[in-house]
Amino acid sequence: MDKQQLIDCQNRIKPFIHNTPILTSRLLDDMVGGSVFFKCENFQRMGAFKMRGAANAIMQLSEAQKQNGVVTHSSGNFAQALSLAAQSLGVKAYIVMPSSAPQVKKNAVKGYGGKVIECEPTLEARERESKHIVDSYGATFIHPSNDDAVILGQGTACMELLESYPDLDFVVTPVGGGGLIAGTALAAHYFGNSCATIGGEPSEVDDAYRSLISGKIETNKTTQTIADGLKTQLGDRNFPIIQQHVQKIIRVTEAEIVAAMRLLWERLKIVCEPSSAVAFAAVLKEKNQFVGKKTGIIISGGNVDLDHLPFGRS
Amino acid sequence: MDKQQLIDCQNRIKPFIHNTPILTSRLLDDMVGGSVFFKCENFQRMGAFKMRGAANAIMQLSEAQKQNGVVTHSSGNFAQALSLAAQSLGVKAYIVMPSSAPQVKKNAVKGYGGKVIECEPTLEARERESKHIVDSYGATFIHPSNDDAVILGQGTACMELLESYPDLDFVVTPVGGGGLIAGTALAAHYFGNSCATIGGEPSEVDDAYRSLISGKIETNKTTQTIADGLKTQLGDRNFPIIQQHVQKIIRVTEAEIVAAMRLLWERLKIVCEPSSAVAFAAVLKEKNQFVGKKTGIIISGGNVDLDHLPFGRS
Repeated sequence: MDKQQLIDCQNRIKPFIHNTPILTSRLLDDMVGGSVFFKCENFQRMGAFKMRGAANAIMQLSEAQKQNGVVTHSSGNFAQALSLAAQSLGVKAYIVMPSSAPQVKKNAVKGYGGKVIECEPTLEARERESKHIVDSYGATFIHPSNDDAVILGQGTACMELLESYPDLDFVVTPVGGGGLIAGTALAAHYFGNSCATIGGEPSEVDDAYRSLISGKIETNKTTQTIADGLKTQLGDRNFPIIQQHVQKIIRVTEAEIVAAMRLLWERLKIVCEPSSAVAFAAVLKEKNQFVGKKTGIIISGGNVDLDHLPFGRS
Repeated sequence: MDKQQLIDCQNRIKPFIHNTPILTSRLLDDMVGGSVFFKCENFQRMGAFKMRGAANAIMQLSEAQKQNGVVTHSSGNFAQALSLAAQSLGVKAYIVMPSSAPQVKKNAVKGYGGKVIECEPTLEARERESKHIVDSYGATFIHPSNDDAVILGQGTACMELLESYPDLDFVVTPVGGGGLIAGTALAAHYFGNSCATIGGEPSEVDDAYRSLISGKIETNKTTQTIADGLKTQLGDRNFPIIQQHVQKIIRVTEAEIVAAMRLLWERLKIVCEPSSAVAFAAVLKEKNQFVGKKTGIIISGGNVDLDHLPFGRS
């Protein structure tokens, strides 16, 4: 994927996304010992960066494909993103969700016009159900993270960050399925002025960290992390980009994630997901690398359940 | 106070404050049935609009006065605001706080360079202690809300709102000591294009509502509200402005405040104080007035204790 593809993508999706605010905090700068710029994708439409990739993926389809709709399997932000992007573009979206998914997530998808298809909560069942919809309706399957158009779309958040702060030394993102960090790494490579991309990943689901060491896509045996957006694994489209363009991945503990999340809520005054806090936790953990530097952090989303926080009622 | 004084104030304090973002939400617009623009003073320096008035009040002093420092009595946002504004301007700040104030609030004042003077938790004690500091050090007393320079400073948030959205029909603020709503009403009067100012006030501390009816400054016998920034009463400087320029005050229940706060956290993805939610609760309560209109809401601040929320852990 080249520079022009990113520029075309940014122009294409501009009418359907927000250029989100970038926030700073002197106190958080002091904690890091450098300048930190938080790109607040929690303020993105439907509350996460996923809107960018979903919009780009649908807009890249032919008119005939759009007529037959799109399908994905997700119980997270991509389910809502594909639904809202499809609704905005007049396209039908089928969302395969495990029957065990919380009703509030199913309702969110329906609220954005997506058609929820329930299946058993296994990888096999959701892939079978997705294939069934592709076969039955001619719908186009769009993967939440392992799709070139999705990767390009996710990269536009970093492009906006670099438009405001062209001389960032680092950009740091959380690592889940790999779409965000791959798109970010491409954008930093093409539009940064020597800007290195670094990932933050929960130690409990450190498949990407291990993948970079082994040179092949690793998986997680268990996924016990509060960062529920980061339980997924890399794919064959984004892994080579990550291998080529990501400097390193920093692993953080659950306690470090919660502490970073609390700092973001208290000091930046934003509601963000635990997954978003992973990137900031990584910067705090290895802050020697960021002292005296300019670091951008992608705050990936803000869709949290206010009845299930790691703080709140005393 | 005239238009030119507001313009001069805005230019004066500009280097010391943030022009805070204005957020919108389609879902919240749909709930109201009109367009709502949230001026996010929770992103202001030290986390509240109070920074504006504090900076203006100190900058209006003579050099001789600045040499002797400033004093106020507050256990809330104005204590932090005066401390940070004084620190930014190289002036000493004495902050009289009740000994019963939470340690976290005393630490916040100290963190901004303010000198904390503890006193008994009564109105008499804090006024006596403030007078003592004025007499001993020649410091200038600055009231948190009943001071012309403070009122002008608080009005600059509405000026910024109207610069972005010149044709607002309404601007709505919470009502506590009256500084914010008085400054806002002046700004809406001089810079709005037929923009009416409306206040939101907790029913539990509805002194301003009753004051507008009786024509004299009323007080509260009890102050049992979650909106802890709104327990104070109006003063002789701001009340006449409120009488002349505020269209009405809408009272809201505690449950309505918490529900509005939750909506702001969930949908705008911002951390804001219960006091800030009062203004939005007022719009939701009497939404017939706001249907089809353009309404600005001042989100007053974001300094909350994440261990004492009305939601969170299940």
